[in-house]
Amino acid sequence: MKAGVLYSGGKDSSLIAVILQRIGLEIELVTANFGVYDSWMPASKSASALGFNHRILKLNKEILEKAVEKILDDGFPNKGIDYIHNQVLEVMANQYSIVADGTRRDDRIPKLKENQIRSFEDRNSVEYINLQSFGYNTISRFSSMLFKVKNEESSPKNNSDYEIEIRYLIDKLMGEGKSKTIFPKHYQTRVTGWK
Amino acid sequence: MKAGVLYSGGKDSSLIAVILQRIGLEIELVTANFGVYDSWMPASKSASALGFNHRILKLNKEILEKAVEKILDDGFPNKGIDYIHNQVLEVMANQYSIVADGTRRDDRIPKLKENQIRSFEDRNSVEYINLQSFGYNTISRFSSMLFKVKNEESSPKNNSDYEIEIRYLIDKLMGEGKSKTIFPKHYQTRVTGWK
Repeated sequence: MKAGVLYSGGKDSSLIAVILQRIGLEIELVTANFGVYDSWMPASKSASALGFNHRILKLNKEILEKAVEKILDDGFPNKGIDYIHNQVLEVMANQYSIVADGTRRDDRIPKLKENQIRSFEDRNSVEYINLQSFGYNTISRFSSMLFKVKNEESSPKNNSDYEIEIRYLIDKLMGEGKSKTIFPKHYQTRVTGWK
Repeated sequence: MKAGVLYSGGKDSSLIAVILQRIGLEIELVTANFGVYDSWMPASKSASALGFNHRILKLNKEILEKAVEKILDDGFPNKGIDYIHNQVLEVMANQYSIVADGTRRDDRIPKLKENQIRSFEDRNSVEYINLQSFGYNTISRFSSMLFKVKNEESSPKNNSDYEIEIRYLIDKLMGEGKSKTIFPKHYQTRVTGWK
């Protein structure tokens, strides 16, 4: 049985893929893209370093535009990112009967609440799996057991999160640098291979 | 690194043990016992059928007595079972730096809420892991991929849940058959080996 795993190239989405593969599922790593910037490339490299199949899920640019609108209205990214994630999951549910992502127990955004998970599974007749079983320390532990990683300041060259295309579009619409006032500088961990 | 996994011999606790072993942890399956009835025996058989180490965690009978008191007061088992589970976890946290159980996303009792998990991990400097990542259908799917199981009416001979010693003590205190008025008849799945 095949599972579609939303994939950013980070340790969380890499870990859920490994767990599901080791239980015996066939894994397809999937990175969403809205056609404004090729932000899927770092994820694709991580997937290939781990030996997983990887594909790009091309999505309607309108989803990204609506998210950017929300984010500019709010002045912060949370609701817009959550909106994108929910839309991406709905498309995934049309293509896979098992849909997984790397959201952890202590993640806040993007994340499905328990009633949203029930609704998502029931409406779409899919199974949804995330990393809710595990906390931050456990995932760091597993990651260091399993993966070679690179820790670096997040940039469009090394990050496949929704954030990258959102920032690209914000800067295009509002002027270079505007996205920096909404998204804080942050470090991220990218998986570069097996330990 | 060793993880202590609370183990009943059912598919949920078997699955979390398999997942953690396949990520690379050393697994010790642990069944709590309060010394009133040898309810750990079915769990021990399942553990051995899967090739896991298994031990019995001998606990103070007062915990069981307090749970039974609650259950008789309430007329239903939920709070008493939750009380036992919390007490067992606290003892586990003194013995393992990673503590796991088989509670699922859609389980209600026994189960730690998110704030209880945070408190349990922080107070004890442990990592806590459960099956919250997965829903009922996914766990049935994984179980049928991995395990030979037996589905049968729950009895003291085939079940290692807390329920067994609780019922034994209730019947001893209140007269044979009393526990039947509190615990409904139910079917259960016991793991008997690998597929």
